[in-house]
Amino acid sequence: MMIEVDYRFPRGVDAKKQAGIIAIGQTAGTWSVRHQHREGQLRAHLAKVIALREEHDGASIATVAFPRGNVEGDIASLLTMIFGKYSMAGAGRIVAVRLPVDYGVGAKFGISGLRGLTGIHQSPVVMAIFKPALGLSAEDHADILREVAEAGLSIIKDDEIMPDVPEAPTIERLRACRRVIDETKSSRGGRELLYALNLTGRADQLLAKARRFVDEGANAFLLNVLTYGFSVMEALAADPAIQVPIFAHPALAGAIAASPDHGIAYPVILGTLMAHCGADAVLYPAHYGSLPFNRDDEFAIRDSLRSRGVFPVPSAGIMPKLVPQIVADYGIDVILNAGTGIMDHEGGPAGGVKAFQVALANIAADK
Amino acid sequence: MMIEVDYRFPRGVDAKKQAGIIAIGQTAGTWSVRHQHREGQLRAHLAKVIALREEHDGASIATVAFPRGNVEGDIASLLTMIFGKYSMAGAGRIVAVRLPVDYGVGAKFGISGLRGLTGIHQSPVVMAIFKPALGLSAEDHADILREVAEAGLSIIKDDEIMPDVPEAPTIERLRACRRVIDETKSSRGGRELLYALNLTGRADQLLAKARRFVDEGANAFLLNVLTYGFSVMEALAADPAIQVPIFAHPALAGAIAASPDHGIAYPVILGTLMAHCGADAVLYPAHYGSLPFNRDDEFAIRDSLRSRGVFPVPSAGIMPKLVPQIVADYGIDVILNAGTGIMDHEGGPAGGVKAFQVALANIAADK
Repeated sequence: MMIEVDYRFPRGVDAKKQAGIIAIGQTAGTWSVRHQHREGQLRAHLAKVIALREEHDGASIATVAFPRGNVEGDIASLLTMIFGKYSMAGAGRIVAVRLPVDYGVGAKFGISGLRGLTGIHQSPVVMAIFKPALGLSAEDHADILREVAEAGLSIIKDDEIMPDVPEAPTIERLRACRRVIDETKSSRGGRELLYALNLTGRADQLLAKARRFVDEGANAFLLNVLTYGFSVMEALAADPAIQVPIFAHPALAGAIAASPDHGIAYPVILGTLMAHCGADAVLYPAHYGSLPFNRDDEFAIRDSLRSRGVFPVPSAGIMPKLVPQIVADYGIDVILNAGTGIMDHEGGPAGGVKAFQVALANIAADK
Repeated sequence: MMIEVDYRFPRGVDAKKQAGIIAIGQTAGTWSVRHQHREGQLRAHLAKVIALREEHDGASIATVAFPRGNVEGDIASLLTMIFGKYSMAGAGRIVAVRLPVDYGVGAKFGISGLRGLTGIHQSPVVMAIFKPALGLSAEDHADILREVAEAGLSIIKDDEIMPDVPEAPTIERLRACRRVIDETKSSRGGRELLYALNLTGRADQLLAKARRFVDEGANAFLLNVLTYGFSVMEALAADPAIQVPIFAHPALAGAIAASPDHGIAYPVILGTLMAHCGADAVLYPAHYGSLPFNRDDEFAIRDSLRSRGVFPVPSAGIMPKLVPQIVADYGIDVILNAGTGIMDHEGGPAGGVKAFQVALANIAADK
């Protein structure tokens, strides 16, 4: 199977011409008579324009089919080929990418693995975010973790901006929280609260830290895939020493996806590419929430992730009152990820967890 | 020193309000009475809006100053803080970032180191790109390399889309070309032609390959920093085993920078951030060339790179006839990077190299 990419060009751009430039310029390029003896191999690398259609607003969608052999089966070489130099060529945007089923790295855990770890099989899974994002000590984190663990929360994660800094080094947050995870485990029917620890640093250090953290009892990770690199996510996913689920955060996605006529659409960046890079669960803005997000984009992301068994995690501004609507739209295969919705609840973090549990119980009772 | 970021908001956006949201939401966030005992630490992480001005077109620029202690001194944690979640918040764009001088990783070679390696001290340095980009064998590469090495070229690089594939594995391209580099060295006054080998693959594999390639005689590397990740570039730059210059390619930059009201401006992505991530030379589009590029952006990138001793490499459509204008704009501290300008020359690659040499000699003679 070829790799098919849909490029959207705004009204006024000669889409046929541009697609032709992509098909040649992003693959073998042109060659002179000096390379006629390699004609066969060179031709085999060229992409083809296989479809061209006009949209109602005058924009055009061109579909270019690239040979799979031009790339290495990872996201970075794919991005370099389909939009590397061409991204600087003017107005034009990638709106869909269709990859072979076996392209990339699969999730180690995904929906079924995370259900096994959390023991939540017939309901959405509830996840919280440590707040305030910065400025708490490792012990502060452990205190918060104890409260939500005892309240029955399934997963908690660092805020994505929490770095590895002297004030609360990642290893100390892990150790302080790991103690509480162990202490609260038996009261939770033997289920550990999963703590998605934010992985940061230079690529070599980040990968080494991930292994060390697993040795010290980390049971989940968070990665800002777009700021650290898909290549780092793939390395974590492929590492047999890292047998814990990895949550992918969408930080920076808007810099690539938010423009109408440039960049790469959200469903590609946060759906298709995340689903092929080994993430177990992927966070993205919910249209119900605090970020302006398109409902169709949100559901396209959800469906891309699920098609590969990856857990969708609509995020940002998720409150207990939204639970009925989310469950109506998502069914049970969704992680409800709340920051202030849990941490700033009037009953404290435990009160926030209980509010989500009550909201879920009410839905179950209505059935 | 704080980290200062200029955000540009289009007409109609309440810039003061948005800057306030960034200063709090991208740092500590809000906190409740439960965290009053941590008030001091929490406040220390907040950013401040330090300037606000309106542009002639009704857009506004807000400057936000972030505490350096919120990040780890690398580009990934910086991007997560200054534009991670906020990039998904609506129209708004980063147009400048001012970092402390000692922020990030410095270039191992940069302008002075590359002049030492090439022996070119009083003139621009000429660089070529292997073309066709895909489809040639390792031996084809070696044949081309011999021709340009004998013609006196200083640097040649892989095309950025050249992956590590069975048809011409990177290690085989290196070995075939290394033999020719050795064979041609003495006829070049003992100066090796630098061959910037494209580093690809999962982060762990890429870093391991880089070390192996150095062991096998690689004398330069190319990295698509934006598709593989700044964290990978930093790891290469920090690795004491990798004592060869690294050329940073701008592939994918347009997906982040090309939109008028979203993303991050080219001078930040290809100038400021590249200058602080350890690259020795950075490629970017030249406004003279084949990609539509803004002259002011180009020169801002040039100046950012030079301010940190990094070699500027204006690229895409560089032809011998452009040399006088480039030298007028750049002086001698520039790498002239030509793909088809050398490879598709009517006199073959050697003819292309000579055409650049003649153009440079003519300028020197005019002085």
